[in-house]
Amino acid sequence: MSKVNLTQKLASFDAYWTPKIVASYNCNDIMVVKVKGEFNWHSHAETDDLFLVLKGTIDIHMRDQIVTLSEGELYVIPAGIEHRPVAKQEAHLLLIEPANTPNTGDQATAAKKEMI
Amino acid sequence: MSKVNLTQKLASFDAYWTPKIVASYNCNDIMVVKVKGEFNWHSHAETDDLFLVLKGTIDIHMRDQIVTLSEGELYVIPAGIEHRPVAKQEAHLLLIEPANTPNTGDQATAAKKEMI
Repeated sequence: MSKVNLTQKLASFDAYWTPKIVASYNCNDIMVVKVKGEFNWHSHAETDDLFLVLKGTIDIHMRDQIVTLSEGELYVIPAGIEHRPVAKQEAHLLLIEPANTPNTGDQATAAKKEMI
Repeated sequence: MSKVNLTQKLASFDAYWTPKIVASYNCNDIMVVKVKGEFNWHSHAETDDLFLVLKGTIDIHMRDQIVTLSEGELYVIPAGIEHRPVAKQEAHLLLIEPANTPNTGDQATAAKKEMI
């Protein structure tokens, strides 16, 4: 593989809430995503969900708490925990999920993940 | 879990080449490490090895190439590929490896990984 420059990858697309695969690690997708606004409530029964903020700030709403993450902060949402990411302003994230995990928790409504 | 501020975690220790676990994701250790100088040649037969540079620059020597990574750049070393990280100046990295992976490729010489 070639090295991956996260800033360059993020500069190559505009759409929000459409994770782009930039590398693979042991059958996990390493992804970058731009977010702004409110995502849907969802959970992933089979997998934890790792968020690392590369730029900006996001609030991860869970049913019992809200975790606010700024640049250089990470959080792992345990499998099965309902969550809803919210970004008041545009934010850039690194995500890790097993390959083929639907970003909405549901294959029918999931964004198609492409490699960039 | 609490959110993890990577800069704060890195400020809490000094030793080089001693990865510290900051979170767990699906039985993988999410780690930060400070590096300076040359590490040993090694490989991990069973797992890929993900490096993300948080500060500074490192050269990942492989037998057929050297990949230079700066802040915001990541690289995945495929399972089984011999590699040797080298940092001319102090650099800070985020690493992901399955729990209990020896950082040297060998349990006998591996650094003990503690959670911070």
